[in-house]
Amino acid sequence: MSGSKTLTEAFEKAAYPLGGHGPRDVEVLRQAFEEVPGSMSSDMYGKGKAIEDFQSKMASYLGKEAAVFFPSGTMAQQIALRIWCDGKGLKRVAYHPLCHLEIHEQDGMKELHHIEAVLLADKERLITLDDVRQLEGEISCLLLELPQREIGGQLPPYEELEAISAYCREKGIRLHLDGARLFEITPYYNKSAAEICGLFDSVYVSFYKGIGGIAGAVLAGDASFTEQSKIWKRRHGGDLISLYPYIVSSEYYFDRRIGSMKRYYEEAKELAALYNACGGVSTRPEVPVSNMFHVHFKLPEEKAASILAHVAETTGVGLSAWLRETEEGACFFEISIGDRYANVPKEKIEEAFRLLGELMEEAMK
Amino acid sequence: MSGSKTLTEAFEKAAYPLGGHGPRDVEVLRQAFEEVPGSMSSDMYGKGKAIEDFQSKMASYLGKEAAVFFPSGTMAQQIALRIWCDGKGLKRVAYHPLCHLEIHEQDGMKELHHIEAVLLADKERLITLDDVRQLEGEISCLLLELPQREIGGQLPPYEELEAISAYCREKGIRLHLDGARLFEITPYYNKSAAEICGLFDSVYVSFYKGIGGIAGAVLAGDASFTEQSKIWKRRHGGDLISLYPYIVSSEYYFDRRIGSMKRYYEEAKELAALYNACGGVSTRPEVPVSNMFHVHFKLPEEKAASILAHVAETTGVGLSAWLRETEEGACFFEISIGDRYANVPKEKIEEAFRLLGELMEEAMK
Repeated sequence: MSGSKTLTEAFEKAAYPLGGHGPRDVEVLRQAFEEVPGSMSSDMYGKGKAIEDFQSKMASYLGKEAAVFFPSGTMAQQIALRIWCDGKGLKRVAYHPLCHLEIHEQDGMKELHHIEAVLLADKERLITLDDVRQLEGEISCLLLELPQREIGGQLPPYEELEAISAYCREKGIRLHLDGARLFEITPYYNKSAAEICGLFDSVYVSFYKGIGGIAGAVLAGDASFTEQSKIWKRRHGGDLISLYPYIVSSEYYFDRRIGSMKRYYEEAKELAALYNACGGVSTRPEVPVSNMFHVHFKLPEEKAASILAHVAETTGVGLSAWLRETEEGACFFEISIGDRYANVPKEKIEEAFRLLGELMEEAMK
Repeated sequence: MSGSKTLTEAFEKAAYPLGGHGPRDVEVLRQAFEEVPGSMSSDMYGKGKAIEDFQSKMASYLGKEAAVFFPSGTMAQQIALRIWCDGKGLKRVAYHPLCHLEIHEQDGMKELHHIEAVLLADKERLITLDDVRQLEGEISCLLLELPQREIGGQLPPYEELEAISAYCREKGIRLHLDGARLFEITPYYNKSAAEICGLFDSVYVSFYKGIGGIAGAVLAGDASFTEQSKIWKRRHGGDLISLYPYIVSSEYYFDRRIGSMKRYYEEAKELAALYNACGGVSTRPEVPVSNMFHVHFKLPEEKAASILAHVAETTGVGLSAWLRETEEGACFFEISIGDRYANVPKEKIEEAFRLLGELMEEAMK
């Protein structure tokens, strides 16, 4: 049995998992629908109160003229970029090398929309204003992901964001926000979602990250943009007869958790500090700027896995269910703080980190 | 107020609507999940028991090697045609002029996949073997929709289907089944779904027509085909983290209703005969071959609407909520028989058709 399999099993048995809101199970749906009257009508192919009310609510929250509910962010973002490309008559966009569209979507944007991607910055750092200034040739749209998930959830200073936005407006480049974790960064920037979105022409947000819904996304922008997005949604096969299972649950968990983003952020900082106090362990970013961060171990995956499994078995605290090997032969995992963290007794967390510190000290000798 | 608006209102108040299973409301979801344990895990991006078990069940039911669950038929069918086109290196397919891909999908197949469509037959009749034989130039795939919904749900003789299938195999043309209403035609052909699908290389079925689920589709074929379809599903943005709200409800209503297709079909024939006995009314097809048919009135829309509204208000029997004008200035509606029909008292139906007959006689003078 590999270390990782033992780790997953130990995590699943752990009484106190530290990340997330809870298991992704049918209970998530059941809770969201508990108070919904059975007589509530379905949305019908993008129309009806069930979808329109939530779209209006999100448009208003994001400070945009209109919003459209999508089954997925993959669909929403390809469509956003396609609309901006068609508007300019140039199928060329720029984004980070670890952008979701580049690494998680089987090249949908290229295969379906024939849009060329210019990769800005590199896999180790954020896109800067200089990267955008030095970009060769024209582009229709720049996509920024806030926070940049694949490097631990990092954020540029807000002033740099404003400068990039101003530069793009000056140059006629559309700015799109991959806001899969937008809600989660408002406490760090100390800005409303609408203020942040004000820097962008279009924005996508997700309802199953910090919000903890079942699935679903919203794409927002001006009304001409969102109307075009509905046509493309139909073309992609995303204009379902009924999206209400996702809409109702998205709204339910949005209402329930949108006020907790600051708490998740503070807890993430607290937890990261505990990791950074252990030898051979470091978080990225060192001080989180949202509810998420990566935890790196200066150990081979199998060794780190057996340590995490041992902590879970001994203390009941589940630090992670998995580890991923890095190119340097070390390993890391990602954690996002949700509702669970606050329910773990403080002494359990202390016990787990005392043990982790000891085991790491031993292993690093 | 237009006749049609009155009609919709009268239909909504009618105690005995004749078509469908019931309102498309949250109760549909609630019932499907009533007995599902809250601890049941979500599918995860196309993996896990929640999706794999149902895919296996449907593959077996359809007599295919493998099946993939999709959020929509729009997505599934574009992908099927794309795979067959890529396989042959020719982006050209043939289908009926009233094919769903041609009239309901905002040209997704053309805009996203750049596939050319050859339209066979015409808007008034089914595709025949001769149409396929006389097709000019090569195609990668022929799509047949059984039954052909937009002309009332018509079917070719089974022998013609077999001949088209044999011809396509001989010529190296892939045959794809738009089986949005496949379950509903098995009683007329007196064949299993697997027997019918045996004539096709790939097949799509829907879970919110005769089955009455919330949304969702399955695409089935050989394993190499379905594996490719998963890649395209990710590209389209249809590989959601959780599709279980649609999967669980699809399976629930499949199990509950698959055995009722014969009854719906028999009831459709009974109801069509009642319409055809009224002057100025005729059904298309005259004798239904599935649970669906169209009802045509030799009257302008407004006049027919006020008659149907009057029947609903007087007898409580809702014949239709809407009417569509034809090019000839007459009108029609579509009806699909589901669970509701059997629950309407026979004397209510008789009363409604006695009144409809009288009103039509009056109107046709």
